[in-house]
Amino acid sequence: MSMQHIFVLGAGAWGTALALVAQQAGRMVTLWAREPAAIAAMAVAGENRRYLPGIALPPDLRLSADLADAARADAVLLAAPAQHLRPMVRALVPHLRPDVPLVLCAKGIEIATGAFLHEMLAQEAPAHPVAALSGPTFASEVARGLPTAVALACEHEQLGWALVHALGTRTFRPYWQADLVGAEVGGAVKNVLAIACGIAMGLGLGENARAALVTRGLAELARLGAALGARPDTLMGLSGLGDVVLTCNSPQSRNMSLGIALGQGWSLAETLAQRHSVAEGVPTAQAVMAVAARLGVELPICGAVHAILHTGADLQLALQALLERPFRAEAG
Amino acid sequence: MSMQHIFVLGAGAWGTALALVAQQAGRMVTLWAREPAAIAAMAVAGENRRYLPGIALPPDLRLSADLADAARADAVLLAAPAQHLRPMVRALVPHLRPDVPLVLCAKGIEIATGAFLHEMLAQEAPAHPVAALSGPTFASEVARGLPTAVALACEHEQLGWALVHALGTRTFRPYWQADLVGAEVGGAVKNVLAIACGIAMGLGLGENARAALVTRGLAELARLGAALGARPDTLMGLSGLGDVVLTCNSPQSRNMSLGIALGQGWSLAETLAQRHSVAEGVPTAQAVMAVAARLGVELPICGAVHAILHTGADLQLALQALLERPFRAEAG
Repeated sequence: MSMQHIFVLGAGAWGTALALVAQQAGRMVTLWAREPAAIAAMAVAGENRRYLPGIALPPDLRLSADLADAARADAVLLAAPAQHLRPMVRALVPHLRPDVPLVLCAKGIEIATGAFLHEMLAQEAPAHPVAALSGPTFASEVARGLPTAVALACEHEQLGWALVHALGTRTFRPYWQADLVGAEVGGAVKNVLAIACGIAMGLGLGENARAALVTRGLAELARLGAALGARPDTLMGLSGLGDVVLTCNSPQSRNMSLGIALGQGWSLAETLAQRHSVAEGVPTAQAVMAVAARLGVELPICGAVHAILHTGADLQLALQALLERPFRAEAG
Repeated sequence: MSMQHIFVLGAGAWGTALALVAQQAGRMVTLWAREPAAIAAMAVAGENRRYLPGIALPPDLRLSADLADAARADAVLLAAPAQHLRPMVRALVPHLRPDVPLVLCAKGIEIATGAFLHEMLAQEAPAHPVAALSGPTFASEVARGLPTAVALACEHEQLGWALVHALGTRTFRPYWQADLVGAEVGGAVKNVLAIACGIAMGLGLGENARAALVTRGLAELARLGAALGARPDTLMGLSGLGDVVLTCNSPQSRNMSLGIALGQGWSLAETLAQRHSVAEGVPTAQAVMAVAARLGVELPICGAVHAILHTGADLQLALQALLERPFRAEAG
């Protein structure tokens, strides 16, 4: 399985970092952005000043605003935001050779449809095999070559290993596993949990409370994942537990900082008005609760976040209800 | 089961915080320290200036340096350091009424014997039922009344619930479970993992690396726990995952700060010389590896910490070996 040409769709921080990694791994890489002006700016500056400032782009990294440049790709990394991915994939597919694998590098659930991204790909690109790359990854650390381990989920074992070897370097370590659903559900739920942890921080509830929320939040992820058919190992691996630990420990991350602002008394409208980018956990809370309702799974923390964000629940009361639940058995 | 009188053995930060909690829960509490001078200082100051400065001790909290004061106790909380507990228990037991439960509030493995603390109690106090209280707890937060959730492990369900109700308050939430071994193994291993995370931080390896270490460290804890007969739920609960998340995220904690110093290039001897108290993870690394060897369980991270601390392994090489393992399946 030849994996010489890699096409990266999306030139945000994560897409750019992945393009650098693939190049370091010895691949020929094209980094694509929708706006020609963004591509031109990167070409002139020799870096992605907007999303990954201070990291030089090597001269042999190809920059493109033309999806036709995907024609030679042996694999495509989909690194655009979850909510924008469907129309991009629809436009991309006609340019691809048959059988070219699509690797999901975005996290989230498509709000308009409630679909996980691999379900969206099954609709939009049914002929193409699918993989997902997910785990605890700050893009800036990956771009600087700091050690990073990720799950590479792919149901086709041989293709999974081919992607591991195509993208892995000495410091960027993909670990193959077969459970696509498990990898995706972790990446979605963690943003909702990060909002909950941020609210607890903003309210000044302390580190004990945050550790309790992370623990119970992972139990929620495990319940939801099990109902979706995910493997327990996946949920407790890099794309689940690992990503939750990183995201819920990063006051500078978008979801947690949104929660902190809410906990400090700002309204959601005020908080969102001050931001360029929506925190993915805001729409995802709604999508996660819709999935949970359909499957009959109880998710008290995600439910509290959803109620605070979308139905005007009192934040202090909602958090108190979570942290002062009646005494019961731990694994009851 | 009457639970009116609580005797707390050990007046460090944790014992003092637990005494305050028990008093808030409505119990009559005696807080015991070995040194009469320490008791006198607390009585005069109205606070535990050495270990929990700034927190007022209520006047009706009894302070004692006399184990005979345990004679009326309905339950004893053992909050002295793991390595000092055995002789204290031996001296305590003759003063106790029969059947008085002993609640382990210390974490660690007894180095001299390789025994878990409940095994030590089975030898030294075979007539007394045993419980363990463990979870993500900074003592200062508990003392200030911030929300905290802990596991209360006890094989006797009725006693477990009696202790939950005797010690629980609106903000201090014990959750009963039956798995004593599971609760203890988490509390021991987490200190070794915190040293590993500290080393990674000291080396400047970043947050992605730390999240990967936490994820794989919890997998090690799960393997060791399973070999010891612990329940998976316990290992992924408050006393396992929850405590690991808190401890591996606290640069100010003793174990993590020791790791940071090592990662920054200080020797173990230099680092220990600057400290009043030994980081529990240093002896525990040795004890954990002895248990793992006996049971035939592979623990790469604990093993690397042990090699760095006790056999002079090169720190940079040991961490690199962990983070640059050959590509393989994630749950392989």
